[in-house]
Amino acid sequence: MSDTNPVWIDGKWSKSSGVEVFLAVDPATGLEIAGQFPKSDWTDCDQALEAAAQAFETLQVTPRTVISDFLKKYADLIEANAEALAKQASQESALPFAPRLKDVEIPRTSNQLRLAATACIDGSWSQPTIDSALNIRSVLSALGPVLVIGPNNFPFAFNGMSGGDFAAALAAGNPVIVKGHPNHPNTTKMLAELASNAIQSTGLPPATVQLLYHMSPESGLRMIADRRLASVAFTGSKSAGLSIKETCDKAGKPVYLEMSSVNPVVILPGAIEERGEALAEEFSGSCMMGAGQFCTNPGFVILCASSKTEAFIGNVVQRFGASPGGTLLAASVRDHLAASVTCVQKAGAQLLVGGNAVEDGGRIAFQNTVLRVSGTEFLNHPEALQTEMFGPVSMFVVVEDLLEAQAVIAQLEGNLTGTIYTSTDDRDDSAYQQMVRPLRQKVGRLLNNKMPTGVAVSLAMNHGGPYPSTGHPGFTAVGIPASMKRFGALQCYDNVRTNRLPEILQDQNPAGLAWRLIDGQWTQGDVISAKA
Amino acid sequence: MSDTNPVWIDGKWSKSSGVEVFLAVDPATGLEIAGQFPKSDWTDCDQALEAAAQAFETLQVTPRTVISDFLKKYADLIEANAEALAKQASQESALPFAPRLKDVEIPRTSNQLRLAATACIDGSWSQPTIDSALNIRSVLSALGPVLVIGPNNFPFAFNGMSGGDFAAALAAGNPVIVKGHPNHPNTTKMLAELASNAIQSTGLPPATVQLLYHMSPESGLRMIADRRLASVAFTGSKSAGLSIKETCDKAGKPVYLEMSSVNPVVILPGAIEERGEALAEEFSGSCMMGAGQFCTNPGFVILCASSKTEAFIGNVVQRFGASPGGTLLAASVRDHLAASVTCVQKAGAQLLVGGNAVEDGGRIAFQNTVLRVSGTEFLNHPEALQTEMFGPVSMFVVVEDLLEAQAVIAQLEGNLTGTIYTSTDDRDDSAYQQMVRPLRQKVGRLLNNKMPTGVAVSLAMNHGGPYPSTGHPGFTAVGIPASMKRFGALQCYDNVRTNRLPEILQDQNPAGLAWRLIDGQWTQGDVISAKA
Repeated sequence: MSDTNPVWIDGKWSKSSGVEVFLAVDPATGLEIAGQFPKSDWTDCDQALEAAAQAFETLQVTPRTVISDFLKKYADLIEANAEALAKQASQESALPFAPRLKDVEIPRTSNQLRLAATACIDGSWSQPTIDSALNIRSVLSALGPVLVIGPNNFPFAFNGMSGGDFAAALAAGNPVIVKGHPNHPNTTKMLAELASNAIQSTGLPPATVQLLYHMSPESGLRMIADRRLASVAFTGSKSAGLSIKETCDKAGKPVYLEMSSVNPVVILPGAIEERGEALAEEFSGSCMMGAGQFCTNPGFVILCASSKTEAFIGNVVQRFGASPGGTLLAASVRDHLAASVTCVQKAGAQLLVGGNAVEDGGRIAFQNTVLRVSGTEFLNHPEALQTEMFGPVSMFVVVEDLLEAQAVIAQLEGNLTGTIYTSTDDRDDSAYQQMVRPLRQKVGRLLNNKMPTGVAVSLAMNHGGPYPSTGHPGFTAVGIPASMKRFGALQCYDNVRTNRLPEILQDQNPAGLAWRLIDGQWTQGDVISAKA
Repeated sequence: MSDTNPVWIDGKWSKSSGVEVFLAVDPATGLEIAGQFPKSDWTDCDQALEAAAQAFETLQVTPRTVISDFLKKYADLIEANAEALAKQASQESALPFAPRLKDVEIPRTSNQLRLAATACIDGSWSQPTIDSALNIRSVLSALGPVLVIGPNNFPFAFNGMSGGDFAAALAAGNPVIVKGHPNHPNTTKMLAELASNAIQSTGLPPATVQLLYHMSPESGLRMIADRRLASVAFTGSKSAGLSIKETCDKAGKPVYLEMSSVNPVVILPGAIEERGEALAEEFSGSCMMGAGQFCTNPGFVILCASSKTEAFIGNVVQRFGASPGGTLLAASVRDHLAASVTCVQKAGAQLLVGGNAVEDGGRIAFQNTVLRVSGTEFLNHPEALQTEMFGPVSMFVVVEDLLEAQAVIAQLEGNLTGTIYTSTDDRDDSAYQQMVRPLRQKVGRLLNNKMPTGVAVSLAMNHGGPYPSTGHPGFTAVGIPASMKRFGALQCYDNVRTNRLPEILQDQNPAGLAWRLIDGQWTQGDVISAKA
């Protein structure tokens, strides 16, 4: 036990009181990676909660510039250490060192942290609203300590220690307790050490960021129910997400979940006719990229029966079969994927290619897989046939006509994305109109002629959607500053003297940066007194 | 059964398939009011859900002007019938015909409907957000059918058929199924008939508004769980609210609840010294107004022990005792109040005045009541001693010092409002700072030197707060357009051609009215293409 890595609680790296340990595994070899990590017990959780509650008190009187400086400093440190970080993450996740990790995900991560740093100072995210005649003013303000639970598939951009939820919760003024993902503890540890440096050099209250690598579900749910915790942000599996949601719901605290999504793609007849081959290439690339381990992987494709559709399917099957299954993040991902594929097959889907784990020494992988089902068959078992298959797998639903396509869409649960491909000319216009209305209500982001895999960090992005893709359809997990609103409570001030108001609600716009809604007009200006 | 009032489903006034009936009671006499109303069974609920789902389809392609015209026309009709409406509501609620109902609540209600009509056309509520470089655009869009369940205490301004939730849900583009409050069915019926006229004269899809007067909890919860229903807005008791919340949570649908609140008021020593008598008058008036039946009634007053505090308490007790208990809304309110007062007494509170139901012929009333407890006693039983006592009742918590006051505040659950009274000079400034930070995090609206009973319809209002005062701390139930955001799903468009975008997201601002966040700037202008 002496070489077990310490947890980071209340600004100190200290021995976990948990007795269980775990190690990361290199998915490319199946071998354990040196470095023992602790599975925290309740004592660790309790100490982290207590320290976070104290940190929140301090943070409420800490200037926003300190939080902002921390985020910028941390972004700088991540970039300065990009090489080592990417190398470590690549070993733990089997995701490519470059360009994926070093040149795409790390820059995205530091960019997100810098956007959060700006938004934190600017204050526009909090939507300050002023009724000058009645002297009623309101603003979204920090909620309290947030537990951030990151997923396995983005060791930086969604890591609990550095990703979008981390940046948003912190920039909104909340202390963060990070629950690392057990598949990449060494990466998370490196990030935490950089965060720790950044905290020390900027003077943020030490317990503003804390780290536990792992914990039992019991301790985790107890922590979530604890009144010292204000909110939870989670990205991961539906089953874990629903347990967390149930616990938060009972405790009456806001929870933001990103759980599962099959990301329906409708390819209309004109598009298939016009550019079936190109679409097969585009689709295959998107679905197999990163071994298909994206929340927005196109896992469910609706096609109208035709010879062109058969050619498209044949083309995709060939591409999937020609490429060896990419290495997966972990054995649990492979096993879960195998179970999901079996479940979908049992519900009537026909296997066109793939369908099995790759036997390739210790490497953890699954064959690139395509399944197929008719519209009628889908409609007989709509629930099982929209099981998420997380990995390089997709299912084609071949419908007789657009009416059947509508019926299929009507049975879909909530998804993060929905995509419609149309011809470049107007021949699909009428079909588009028939598809878009039912699909629109089922998804958070509607795309046209573009695979859903990319999730741009844009102020207009919605990485969210109706249940069960998330827990609330009004919020996005990606896109600063919109994603910050999740971590604010609406706080109103009624008849409060100017000098007692938060700076951002005073007559004078503190730095002239915040957009404020004053008497119905958005402005970066000051409150103009009616008397003036 | 032949004279049972019909329900309003799918644009038709039709016989309910429920077999049970009920009548309203005049609380001033305890006598039943003529007019039988049906308790709907599942068949009614199912039909309303089906019609609402269809109406939602139509509503999505109905111009916003039609919804807006309906809201304006309905407001006009309510004003034109104010006299008769107020008379009916006064009989059913015992609330004063004037000024309360006719001159205050009805104008507030029609004003709210008109604000919603404007917001519906304007579109700013939906926060259209455009990233012009990436062509990613998002907007809050209608969720789907909303069940609006109004409370007993505002027969107009919070009525499911005419109140804030009704106006907000509808103006956001959602069909509304109204579940009337069984204490005032005749008022709700009159409102529904006016709404029906307004629908006919403006051409809104007939099932956009539907009415069931009552239903069993089983049918209600089945309706709430049904996938055709998108969301629920509820104002009422904590027990009913928690059942609704549990059902919505399980179904993964957003629910907006306004449940209970004791509305803590801290009166600091300087304020008591400076104007104790005036405060006693102000407090007593606020607490006894409308027989104390406000969500924001000041039911919990924290005072520092002193001779001035004793004088204040004595003054209030005299005022409460000198005035006969106002007539309550219903026998159930009286009985629930009696039970709550008993519960608080059992937990250690001392009764200073009142405490019993008024025996006054058939009139339904409860004595104006003041209880008292020490800080120490409160801290021994903090849960029971913050039981909401809905009626003309308040409890004084007399603390030894400010530290004890902080400890009391730390034990409070989430509340809609929190108030601090201070001296007009600066002698309470330091005490204010000690109180405000803990109190701020517990409440949705912080007031200074003003009773919380008034809830202005202001764009900056927050009639919301941390759990269990509501179900989500980020939203307000009062204040157009902010309250409309509850009934929107965030819908993003990625790489969608201009002519396929909703009007409000196209480059040209449709009517130049909507405030849109374009590339980080709020503007009422058009998208300026980078190429231009």
